[in-house]
Amino acid sequence: MTTLTLQRASDIVDAALAKARELGFRPLAVTVLDPGGNAIVLKREDHAGILRPGIAHAKAWGCVGMGVGGAAGARHATRDPAFFAALAAISEGRVAASRGGVLIRDADGEVVGAVGVSGDRPENDETCAVFGVQSVGLTADIG
Amino acid sequence: MTTLTLQRASDIVDAALAKARELGFRPLAVTVLDPGGNAIVLKREDHAGILRPGIAHAKAWGCVGMGVGGAAGARHATRDPAFFAALAAISEGRVAASRGGVLIRDADGEVVGAVGVSGDRPENDETCAVFGVQSVGLTADIG
Amino acid sequence: MTTLTLQRASDIVDAALAKARELGFRPLAVTVLDPGGNAIVLKREDHAGILRPGIAHAKAWGCVGMGVGGAAGARHATRDPAFFAALAAISEGRVAASRGGVLIRDADGEVVGAVGVSGDRPENDETCAVFGVQSVGLTADIG
Amino acid sequence: MTTLTLQRASDIVDAALAKARELGFRPLAVTVLDPGGNAIVLKREDHAGILRPGIAHAKAWGCVGMGVGGAAGARHATRDPAFFAALAAISEGRVAASRGGVLIRDADGEVVGAVGVSGDRPENDETCAVFGVQSVGLTADIG
Repeated sequence: MTTLTLQRASDIVDAALAKARELGFRPLAVTVLDPGGNAIVLKREDHAGILRPGIAHAKAWGCVGMGVGGAAGARHATRDPAFFAALAAISEGRVAASRGGVLIRDADGEVVGAVGVSGDRPENDETCAVFGVQSVGLTADIG
Repeated sequence: MTTLTLQRASDIVDAALAKARELGFRPLAVTVLDPGGNAIVLKREDHAGILRPGIAHAKAWGCVGMGVGGAAGARHATRDPAFFAALAAISEGRVAASRGGVLIRDADGEVVGAVGVSGDRPENDETCAVFGVQSVGLTADIG
Repeated sequence: MTTLTLQRASDIVDAALAKARELGFRPLAVTVLDPGGNAIVLKREDHAGILRPGIAHAKAWGCVGMGVGGAAGARHATRDPAFFAALAAISEGRVAASRGGVLIRDADGEVVGAVGVSGDRPENDETCAVFGVQSVGLTADIG
Repeated sequence: MTTLTLQRASDIVDAALAKARELGFRPLAVTVLDPGGNAIVLKREDHAGILRPGIAHAKAWGCVGMGVGGAAGARHATRDPAFFAALAAISEGRVAASRGGVLIRDADGEVVGAVGVSGDRPENDETCAVFGVQSVGLTADIG
């Protein structure tokens, strides 16, 4: 399995933020977690709300928690809101099933981590997350 | 960036409460937080429910947490209740997306804190919050 | 029983803070709780640490929680640290047994609330708390 | 007051990590918080334990929470362990009073944030934290 080093995780975050600035998105928080759901890197841009890091973390954590990307998680949550209300409690608030959370897979399809982005609209957050993952030659699985 | 001193934060709270008495609103709790979401002043009027300070805090915290005023937060929560249920858990109960939470901005548009009011109807709470902010020459951003 | 109105609770807080400024103490947080342990007023001075309101609240809450003043609580905690470690968990972090927490009693000796002060040394915090209570003609019970 | 931008906070973290590699310290987690106790940047080096980010955060949070650097906090905790056990509960686990937490002050002496480092011995963590702060021309207050 590819291990997501700090260097590579930092490159993902920086690329995601560069894309957000290029596209004029609102201020973001971006984080990359390892497969165990533990943060490797977090950056919060100037003027982003103070809950944005928490939301970004929960989007990424939800991906490694459930083993699917955030877009699939969001569709699932729409179909079954009661289950996701339970998940919020089960996970002690660690899950946000929302676009902007993306599983990171290596060339063998193994999950090597997840990225979470929060601050703009879900689809824009996702654009930045996907771009960040692809910029280091890994595969972005939105689910 | 303007710093919200205790003096100014107290003046905001006192003005909000004076407005509530003038308009005959129900007993209120009013709080002012710094941009980091930490309380500077809290006052709870006689006969206000004991949860009112907590609600007022969560209305204000939600504003600095998400970077938008409570009216915008309330509209967002109506559109996407599942996400706001997740937010309640992610934030460990610190967010109430509701009118009565108002971002405080300085002349440069910078967020210098937030005010939260609870006790009457949301639009009346908001009236008091906005009045309090404007009474000290700052800008009330309801979102 | 005397009821601690918002007006009187505010006067206690303001008197405690005026005393702190007169004596040149470090920046303080001061809160007054009702007998149910719920905040009526909180003020945090400029440059006081962001945990100071929480500590002030816990000093006051510990007084109404145990029914004794903070000086007695502090002596008790020194004699029986394991019990107070349990209290921290039992109370879910609401108790600080420390000087600077003071029970407020009326002319009949009834507990009508508590004040908590944090920011300087415990004995200095207590000086301000006691002064605040006495300034409105109530009795400060340090335990 | 100087605002700690993401750029500057990132530079502090990167300088602290570069110093750790130069001195051959064990793998570290380094975080920079704003004055409100909210993370701006976090980096965890390869092979650092998964609790290291949490400890680094708590070292930094303890500094802004109490308004003193971690070395002073550590001395205080040694003198008064019962109070710091209570603080752990009051702060809901957000405080580690330990060397490696450093207040960041600007040229006017204002607190503009805090850095927390965890992974090696407390004095080595502190060396990296101080170096990071000084590398961007700000003042490191260890207490």
